[in-house]
Amino acid sequence: MQVSKVKIVEVGPRDGLQNEKEFVPTEVKVELINRLTDAGFPNIEAASFVSPKWVPQMADGAEVMEQITRKQGVIYSVLTPNLKGFEGAVAAKADEVVIFGAASEAFSQKNINCSIAESIARFEPVAEAALAQGIRLRASISTAFGCPYQGEVPIDAVLDVVKRMKALGVQEFDIADTIGVGTAGQVYEVMSRVTEIVDPKQVAGHFHDTYGQALANILSAMRAGIQIFHSSVAGLGGCPYAKGATGNVATEDVLYMLHGMGIETGINLDKVIEAGDFISRHLNRANASRVGRAILTKRANAACS
Amino acid sequence: MQVSKVKIVEVGPRDGLQNEKEFVPTEVKVELINRLTDAGFPNIEAASFVSPKWVPQMADGAEVMEQITRKQGVIYSVLTPNLKGFEGAVAAKADEVVIFGAASEAFSQKNINCSIAESIARFEPVAEAALAQGIRLRASISTAFGCPYQGEVPIDAVLDVVKRMKALGVQEFDIADTIGVGTAGQVYEVMSRVTEIVDPKQVAGHFHDTYGQALANILSAMRAGIQIFHSSVAGLGGCPYAKGATGNVATEDVLYMLHGMGIETGINLDKVIEAGDFISRHLNRANASRVGRAILTKRANAACS
Repeated sequence: MQVSKVKIVEVGPRDGLQNEKEFVPTEVKVELINRLTDAGFPNIEAASFVSPKWVPQMADGAEVMEQITRKQGVIYSVLTPNLKGFEGAVAAKADEVVIFGAASEAFSQKNINCSIAESIARFEPVAEAALAQGIRLRASISTAFGCPYQGEVPIDAVLDVVKRMKALGVQEFDIADTIGVGTAGQVYEVMSRVTEIVDPKQVAGHFHDTYGQALANILSAMRAGIQIFHSSVAGLGGCPYAKGATGNVATEDVLYMLHGMGIETGINLDKVIEAGDFISRHLNRANASRVGRAILTKRANAACS
Repeated sequence: MQVSKVKIVEVGPRDGLQNEKEFVPTEVKVELINRLTDAGFPNIEAASFVSPKWVPQMADGAEVMEQITRKQGVIYSVLTPNLKGFEGAVAAKADEVVIFGAASEAFSQKNINCSIAESIARFEPVAEAALAQGIRLRASISTAFGCPYQGEVPIDAVLDVVKRMKALGVQEFDIADTIGVGTAGQVYEVMSRVTEIVDPKQVAGHFHDTYGQALANILSAMRAGIQIFHSSVAGLGGCPYAKGATGNVATEDVLYMLHGMGIETGINLDKVIEAGDFISRHLNRANASRVGRAILTKRANAACS
């Protein structure tokens, strides 16, 4: 299958920044999102309406959503763990709400202390409310390619979660390699099976680059017909040198590959590189995007010579 | 095309270490090569017989070749820029000699001050001598996917170098992305064209990970029937944070992908990770392999808990 157009969902402001130890000031988050909007992303995961007790880094979700400069047609998504979060997201004029579940039973038990089936059932009121109010509903399905507790995750378990989410009325399904352990053959197989039960146009690949496999996995997912991918500017989402930390695949690296292949994204890579430089400087850390590093180094060298 | 077996040529001891600023002691090089031999590589690029004035880091090639513990069946390769280097390689009992040329005219002129055609013609005596003495002859074709001086490199220029090298009697052709700029579609196209004029079993992909594209490019090259890849333990070959430095793709990351796909290499990944840890510690630098870092971190965490 030949994919000619890909939708990139930029998850850095939420999935990336929520892993930061230090609170990132609201104005920095707002500037980052504004830069990403300006770069042309069709969909930006902007905030999380979870309890600040759980995720203090995201406590300013309402302020962020209030202060960003929105562009027409861009979907600003918000993670909503429950009805309270959903109501906050609606008040904040989120275009899309994101619910979640694990494909690994061990991960579900260890992380939220209930079974996969129970965890998804809890989202019923959120899903109903979203459908009733005409707000897009997306589901993130974690540990779909491997679990830090149980190891292998059977494909049937992934399919079971997809079916349960589909029954809730979910419109987009993120098949996520939370710990970055999947490889290309497995990705092709999982994505091929998932697209037997939902339209490929509703399926997204969410890959982490912990084992360096993310771009190869995206390539493999595209062969299975997947046309939506998540990525994080400057590879936000964990410092590669920190214990057990894992980063999302860097948006710059994904765009470089896709544009090199003649695949349209509608996104300006140069502007993303600048946004990545902006946030890396703010966080005072090395840019985790190889493309970002290579191109910024090249520019600095050119400026010197 | 479905590839089920891949030959990995480990280039770290030569292509990697020659880029080090500080001289790596002979005994460290020897231990690294012995560890790589023990890990099961079928082919190790062990030394370079170039003038120590040009590449002082490789001045101890004869000692390295003398001191390593060889395993039967393993090919220990040596880079030979001229007949003098070739004679040194023969005296050191090299199993294979490597000659080289650029696909970019600008790169050839800037680096060796002569045209591509002239540079290849200069290798005639080396090629004749290798054939006469029954020593395997390999050719490295650099800047095949892009050039730091001229930018794009036409496929016909790559094919022209391949043909000239073939006429010299070359048995294996390394199609090298010297600056790591190539992307998957281009790789598929170049490799497909190259394998129209030489047997795919004689073609190797040599990718640098400067833009993070190497694994995706290997995947793409395999689709074009390529079954030989070069890689470097711990990603030796340039520090990712140094100005303009570019590293070879890390062997550990390649093996993780291939083994995950059920592709045989005959190499023990754990032993490669240990060899990568050994040399990274010696060089006092972060391991540039993501798989190496992830697995060593996991082990360290397991040991603590």
